Amino acid sequence: MAEHAAAGARTPGFNVNPLADDKLHEECGVFGIFGANDAAALTTLGLHALQHRGQEAAGIVSSDGSQFYAERHRGLIGDTFTRKVVLDRLKGTRAIGHTRYSTTGGDEMRNVQPFFAEFAGGGFAVAHNGNITNALTLRRQLQREGSIFHTTSDTEVILHLIATARQHSFEERLVAALLQVEGAFSIVGITNKKLVGCRDAFGIRPLVLGDLDGAFILASETCALDIIGARYVRDLEPGELVIIERGGLRSLKPFEPAPSKFCIFEYVYFARPDSVIGGKNVYQVRKQIGIELAREQPAEADIVVAVPDSGTPAAIGFAEGAGLPFEMGIIRNHYVGRTFIQPTDAIRHMGVKLKHNANRRILEGRRVVLVDDSIVRGTTSQKIVQMVREAGAREVHMRIASPPTISSCFYGVDTPEKPKLLASRMGIDEMREFIRVDSLGFLSLDGLYRAAGETARNGETPQFCDACFSGHYPTRLTDHDDRDNVHNLSLLASGE
Amino acid sequence: MAEHAAAGARTPGFNVNPLADDKLHEECGVFGIFGANDAAALTTLGLHALQHRGQEAAGIVSSDGSQFYAERHRGLIGDTFTRKVVLDRLKGTRAIGHTRYSTTGGDEMRNVQPFFAEFAGGGFAVAHNGNITNALTLRRQLQREGSIFHTTSDTEVILHLIATARQHSFEERLVAALLQVEGAFSIVGITNKKLVGCRDAFGIRPLVLGDLDGAFILASETCALDIIGARYVRDLEPGELVIIERGGLRSLKPFEPAPSKFCIFEYVYFARPDSVIGGKNVYQVRKQIGIELAREQPAEADIVVAVPDSGTPAAIGFAEGAGLPFEMGIIRNHYVGRTFIQPTDAIRHMGVKLKHNANRRILEGRRVVLVDDSIVRGTTSQKIVQMVREAGAREVHMRIASPPTISSCFYGVDTPEKPKLLASRMGIDEMREFIRVDSLGFLSLDGLYRAAGETARNGETPQFCDACFSGHYPTRLTDHDDRDNVHNLSLLASGE
Amino acid sequence: MAEHAAAGARTPGFNVNPLADDKLHEECGVFGIFGANDAAALTTLGLHALQHRGQEAAGIVSSDGSQFYAERHRGLIGDTFTRKVVLDRLKGTRAIGHTRYSTTGGDEMRNVQPFFAEFAGGGFAVAHNGNITNALTLRRQLQREGSIFHTTSDTEVILHLIATARQHSFEERLVAALLQVEGAFSIVGITNKKLVGCRDAFGIRPLVLGDLDGAFILASETCALDIIGARYVRDLEPGELVIIERGGLRSLKPFEPAPSKFCIFEYVYFARPDSVIGGKNVYQVRKQIGIELAREQPAEADIVVAVPDSGTPAAIGFAEGAGLPFEMGIIRNHYVGRTFIQPTDAIRHMGVKLKHNANRRILEGRRVVLVDDSIVRGTTSQKIVQMVREAGAREVHMRIASPPTISSCFYGVDTPEKPKLLASRMGIDEMREFIRVDSLGFLSLDGLYRAAGETARNGETPQFCDACFSGHYPTRLTDHDDRDNVHNLSLLASGE
Amino acid sequence: MAEHAAAGARTPGFNVNPLADDKLHEECGVFGIFGANDAAALTTLGLHALQHRGQEAAGIVSSDGSQFYAERHRGLIGDTFTRKVVLDRLKGTRAIGHTRYSTTGGDEMRNVQPFFAEFAGGGFAVAHNGNITNALTLRRQLQREGSIFHTTSDTEVILHLIATARQHSFEERLVAALLQVEGAFSIVGITNKKLVGCRDAFGIRPLVLGDLDGAFILASETCALDIIGARYVRDLEPGELVIIERGGLRSLKPFEPAPSKFCIFEYVYFARPDSVIGGKNVYQVRKQIGIELAREQPAEADIVVAVPDSGTPAAIGFAEGAGLPFEMGIIRNHYVGRTFIQPTDAIRHMGVKLKHNANRRILEGRRVVLVDDSIVRGTTSQKIVQMVREAGAREVHMRIASPPTISSCFYGVDTPEKPKLLASRMGIDEMREFIRVDSLGFLSLDGLYRAAGETARNGETPQFCDACFSGHYPTRLTDHDDRDNVHNLSLLASGE
Repeated sequence: MAEHAAAGARTPGFNVNPLADDKLHEECGVFGIFGANDAAALTTLGLHALQHRGQEAAGIVSSDGSQFYAERHRGLIGDTFTRKVVLDRLKGTRAIGHTRYSTTGGDEMRNVQPFFAEFAGGGFAVAHNGNITNALTLRRQLQREGSIFHTTSDTEVILHLIATARQHSFEERLVAALLQVEGAFSIVGITNKKLVGCRDAFGIRPLVLGDLDGAFILASETCALDIIGARYVRDLEPGELVIIERGGLRSLKPFEPAPSKFCIFEYVYFARPDSVIGGKNVYQVRKQIGIELAREQPAEADIVVAVPDSGTPAAIGFAEGAGLPFEMGIIRNHYVGRTFIQPTDAIRHMGVKLKHNANRRILEGRRVVLVDDSIVRGTTSQKIVQMVREAGAREVHMRIASPPTISSCFYGVDTPEKPKLLASRMGIDEMREFIRVDSLGFLSLDGLYRAAGETARNGETPQFCDACFSGHYPTRLTDHDDRDNVHNLSLLASGE
Repeated sequence: MAEHAAAGARTPGFNVNPLADDKLHEECGVFGIFGANDAAALTTLGLHALQHRGQEAAGIVSSDGSQFYAERHRGLIGDTFTRKVVLDRLKGTRAIGHTRYSTTGGDEMRNVQPFFAEFAGGGFAVAHNGNITNALTLRRQLQREGSIFHTTSDTEVILHLIATARQHSFEERLVAALLQVEGAFSIVGITNKKLVGCRDAFGIRPLVLGDLDGAFILASETCALDIIGARYVRDLEPGELVIIERGGLRSLKPFEPAPSKFCIFEYVYFARPDSVIGGKNVYQVRKQIGIELAREQPAEADIVVAVPDSGTPAAIGFAEGAGLPFEMGIIRNHYVGRTFIQPTDAIRHMGVKLKHNANRRILEGRRVVLVDDSIVRGTTSQKIVQMVREAGAREVHMRIASPPTISSCFYGVDTPEKPKLLASRMGIDEMREFIRVDSLGFLSLDGLYRAAGETARNGETPQFCDACFSGHYPTRLTDHDDRDNVHNLSLLASGE
Repeated sequence: MAEHAAAGARTPGFNVNPLADDKLHEECGVFGIFGANDAAALTTLGLHALQHRGQEAAGIVSSDGSQFYAERHRGLIGDTFTRKVVLDRLKGTRAIGHTRYSTTGGDEMRNVQPFFAEFAGGGFAVAHNGNITNALTLRRQLQREGSIFHTTSDTEVILHLIATARQHSFEERLVAALLQVEGAFSIVGITNKKLVGCRDAFGIRPLVLGDLDGAFILASETCALDIIGARYVRDLEPGELVIIERGGLRSLKPFEPAPSKFCIFEYVYFARPDSVIGGKNVYQVRKQIGIELAREQPAEADIVVAVPDSGTPAAIGFAEGAGLPFEMGIIRNHYVGRTFIQPTDAIRHMGVKLKHNANRRILEGRRVVLVDDSIVRGTTSQKIVQMVREAGAREVHMRIASPPTISSCFYGVDTPEKPKLLASRMGIDEMREFIRVDSLGFLSLDGLYRAAGETARNGETPQFCDACFSGHYPTRLTDHDDRDNVHNLSLLASGE
Repeated sequence: MAEHAAAGARTPGFNVNPLADDKLHEECGVFGIFGANDAAALTTLGLHALQHRGQEAAGIVSSDGSQFYAERHRGLIGDTFTRKVVLDRLKGTRAIGHTRYSTTGGDEMRNVQPFFAEFAGGGFAVAHNGNITNALTLRRQLQREGSIFHTTSDTEVILHLIATARQHSFEERLVAALLQVEGAFSIVGITNKKLVGCRDAFGIRPLVLGDLDGAFILASETCALDIIGARYVRDLEPGELVIIERGGLRSLKPFEPAPSKFCIFEYVYFARPDSVIGGKNVYQVRKQIGIELAREQPAEADIVVAVPDSGTPAAIGFAEGAGLPFEMGIIRNHYVGRTFIQPTDAIRHMGVKLKHNANRRILEGRRVVLVDDSIVRGTTSQKIVQMVREAGAREVHMRIASPPTISSCFYGVDTPEKPKLLASRMGIDEMREFIRVDSLGFLSLDGLYRAAGETARNGETPQFCDACFSGHYPTRLTDHDDRDNVHNLSLLASGE
């Protein structure tokens, strides 16, 4: 899901988060289960395992076959959904859940998924990972015909498209709705009788199928299967729609066939290292990235140091590839509260040190290869390099476990606008100077594809979506291309 | 507004309120203002003055001409909307507000008005006092055509009717929508350019127009004008729709003309004693009720005692009419917290004493006329009488400042179902025995009409809505008459 | 209890309460019970009935004979102590409770009573109504000898005096401690075996003894007995110390005998109208005050109107005495939230209207006798009179149900410093002009004594403490007289 | 600090934390600063860097030279103390802070340090890391003489010993107090004029001195200097008392000289890897531990896997020492909420998986060396091994980066009672079977000493406190040895 930018900014300084790292952020994780006692508790555990895909808020909707039950809470799953009183309210053997990274300053509860709608034929709840690239266009069209939107989220158009579809059965209407949306979507949904899951035609976002003693499970990543002891069955295929009911699972392929375009950045940063996606273990891909990087961008140095935790697997690979020792030259403080609201200047300026500290004894006098997964704006890299230098490093050779990030993502990732991406406005040398390192090296696109198991990138039809590195978008960007699409949402600052 | 009962009860014992008095409860107060700096602060004050019409939650939507700003909070106005940070977010010179008495156990924020909708032509927020008696019927019809409802409130149908209306201008669509709804409604609404106010054709619920240095004000009662120092201009007429814009106020009469049917219970209990409705001061009507009651139902007694605070004006009138001393024989404790959640048995059984205490020295050995405004279930009356007797009263003569309440209200008042109304299943003698008083007397319907300024009730076309006393409903009760209308809302237990 | 003013003010504007009425405030209510199941629940009810004596916070300490259990909460009893989880933690058949009106801006939980101390011989909890006038002197002395104070309350000296007493038994040490404190104190306390209660030698603050099926009860007022259905036994005598244990109650008289000096302002304003103190019903005293006032200060007028609720009984008496009709010309809004924190200017300026509204139709064109219980600073009176005039009153004759308040109270009442008391710096005529009334009349001291059942005030040894009206203090004011006693508490702004 | 166990347990199940790992927990971190603008903000940052030493609550007391200001909050520093409103209240250029790991179920705010006392000569605040082993004995003695304790913490005796000391100057009284306490203490304290810091005679807990542009800093670890950009000056010496005032720093040595006995477990687990203690970098010691372990306890295996994060440095060292690849075979989920209150059974049984997940692709078919820092009860190890086996590991060789933990700590670490320590009741073989590993090896005591820079453990006078491994306690354990010392604290369940 994503949210439409509301016209007019919120009070400056409100909810400023000095911890905002210079990372791209996946916006969501989804989970669904059908046919299990404790469905809500298992969903809670699944969402906990997917917490890295969104930490701001989460929601669960369950069904006992005749009624739906919903809970939405701000904060970490482990703080909110684990309370007995919450879980007890979520009755039934089916449930879907969603964990959410906010893309707007306004953290309004009404935008917390799953979204629920009561159709003439019964209720339906849906949770979405991805972004619908013609959502504003569809929204305007639906509004003209009388639909009232309740959220600022792209996901809501799916509900209205179903509601206004003229087909008869729920399945037909669901398909009719999904055929109209463009972009990236891995969705899970429940009616009182069914669990449904679907990946867009290109399969941009992940979605896997699991089994727990006969219960069906859908989840963004396999780590959510592991935590509940479920068996990984398979990834949903791009364009696949599965309908799960008492009788079992049916698989439909309602979309025009399309080449697979799985987001390669999931391997670089988003997914958890212990997940398996597309048959490949994420940690192993990342370590292999490090090995490729050591080959493509070697460095004369004494030690390899990761910017933890995201740079660690690639740093281990780089160390192995380069035959250099891997050392913990930067220590990460994991006790970072999530609500650094209205921090003082003193704290704001400490910036990076709230999260990372240089391990002086390791760095002093050493030539350091510093490995990070990517560079977005470059501001954090600059500060980390400065910290490493102040700790006494003799040389700093920065190695980035991905190609330069030059384009925005429109598929459910929170990216700064293109001009704010360092690599979109600087060449390698300029970036090296900006970050103030002795050398700077990025992995090539082909190197990245090799690490992901391909022999090379197929320039005609790349095997992945690599738009953020290549500017090559697999789908239409209808909203973006429409100049009128500066959509003014007129309800702001809604507090509860 | 009212809410559709959701099928399936909430956890028994949840949110039990031992303080729940045996009263009918008005469900809402509304307020609107156009053309004032501090519009939100003035709305806050207005809602504070209307707090007796609903204490559970409140909301305000303001507009600065291009954007809307919304705040909704649980609890008393004085605890929530008076914070600077809240008011500062509600920018603009126009605002509407709503204060709400919950009719269902579920106190969900999504049901807190004003409701807002973004139409193709712009945003609209609405707040409603009353109840739409064909809301479920309209809802089902709208759902069949693709509308998605976000709340369980009857009020939301108005928004969907506007959204799906085929007319061109907002005004035409608003009128088209209102022409379809039956029942009682006094509504206020704002677009980015207009403030609108409307009373249903019968004028069942109150709505007054005020002026504050050129700013227009709409409010449920005049006490909301007083608090901000505004001048009372006039009551809106039954069936009147006013449109307020920069250029001034326009008055429309879109409905079929109908006889005025103002709710007579507003005089008996709902309205604040300092309000003026239909040209009559509520306190004076109540005192006159007491005088009529003393004439119709005299008693041999030593003192007149009110069940405070609602019985006080009538008791003063009764004392004056009967030539007996008015004494404070029952003292009310106003420090009653609003969240007696999960109370212990010990407290539950104290029941009435949390709120009322007998003043023993006044009552001992005396023959007491005990005046209350009405009897609903009779349970509280029973306990108060017992308390008065235990305090030593020699005789208790109960006098009720209204006729027996025998029928449910469908116009925005929280009434128990008919069989739970004491007077619907017992005669006067039975009730006297049930409440255990030496004598029991109710005011006659004609007496009530006299106190309200009429010479008598016009049996053919009563001058007021007195359905709760007479069973005579001025409007169709479409939902109620439709046997299929046990509407199952499928989303329950939604927590945030 | 009272609290020592800390040197250095808190942030200006913090916790500003625009509702702060112009009243003197009793600072506490106390309650104790011995030998009852549900001791904590009964204490909760008792404190609820005493809520008018303090609304900011409350505490309960219970004992099951071997352990103590404590709960302290901010806010109204009905919102905090009624939760089952809270009551369940307060085990045992004995308990004491305290409800508190804060006298300082800092509403720190550590100052919420009962206070508890673990002595070498066992634990002791104490709750106090009144004020110890040599508390700072004792505190400095105890600190010099090594005592560490944990609160800024005068009450804590009692605990340290017991702790450091050289006597052997707990009772001897308690008496030794109480013999050292001067001022006003009605205290209740529990050890694991005993409930104790004590009034200072002059009996300045009230304390009554009750019985509930064999359980002993101590409470500030009889209304706390009524709510739990307990029988009033008698008032504790001035200087009486009662020790309640398994075997029954023992009464000691450890202090030098002294003339009774019960606070006459309890009759005027502090106590609840349904309480009986010193054998007299408070409502009846107040009504009699009104009768005396009508005799002493008659007025040519049409109606008598109270400033509700505190002026109501006297207004009823005045009306009866003067043969004029009593009318509800001012309506009080009881839904005033307690946390008007950081209100906007708009609301601040509405001042009095948040709480009171003139009933225009009653006042218009009338000559009004306006009855209030007292005038402190006069600011609120000024605003109310203005409101009554704006509502159309032709003449306003203010009648005050007590003599002019000219001196501060040092016995547990929050009074402004003497120069801020209107009557300490103005004569009647000046006050009349300041308040802008047509005439102004106060009750005489003798009139007040007559209403309280005496034939006249005994000038030599007044039968009550009337220091606020006469400047005649019954006890030494050691702290106040010691010029060095500007005690600087060095810990400020303690937040939790 | 530590807390005395209160007699009588709290409600079973209350605050159960299924995440409670099988680790020993350091109970506190302390920080002090003198002479800096933004003293409170810098203290906040310092405490954030020390968050690993205690996550439950924290407190800061600052002074502006004439007043003290205190704040105490539950939760992570980053969530509580970073708010501007909190920091703004903590005025002045001096401050001390404390972060706390609770050792009792009761997380009462009154036990949150720094503790403050107002002595006759002025205020003093103190924060303590360690545990006073004769605290109960001193407490009873002080209570007999009239001291009233406010907390259940051992630290409070220091305040009472100062308060009741007969010496004249504050310094003399502080020294007199500290001479009476036994056990481990690194304390920081402030008066209005001074910052003091002290380590017990054996220097069991760490305390370092730093400098920030002339401001003096005291902190538990150097990582707290790094975060604010302060320069590390030196460790305080065992038995050193420093007094810091305007004029500079004075160093006293008030205690009987004693051999240094720094806690060796700080190197094994407690301290942050980037800290330098006693001249040695913690990460380097841990890596060296891994190298020693590989030498002492080699294994035939394919990969080395850490139980992250605490086992990671030793695993890197082991891999280096053994010439085996280090792989991320277990992934840690850092998003573990801190308030898993009343979890359902479903979640409780997931146990270890909330925090750790096996990386199946890495483990499948491999012979795995699994490195953890220590084994306490062994329950978590058992579950992790089971998880690793279920993920397909062919063999599991567990290597522990410390000797068997056989004795409780009495110096400020939360250890289970001796019988619950796995190694206190099982030999290596039994443990191997209990944990179900193919082989199990611990580091020897001498190996640990070597890793910490010694050539071997000096059996007569060990260079560290290694009581948890050896049962050899450097100090008297007065409270523990006194059989009467089952101290019943009589106030329980105090809620606020």
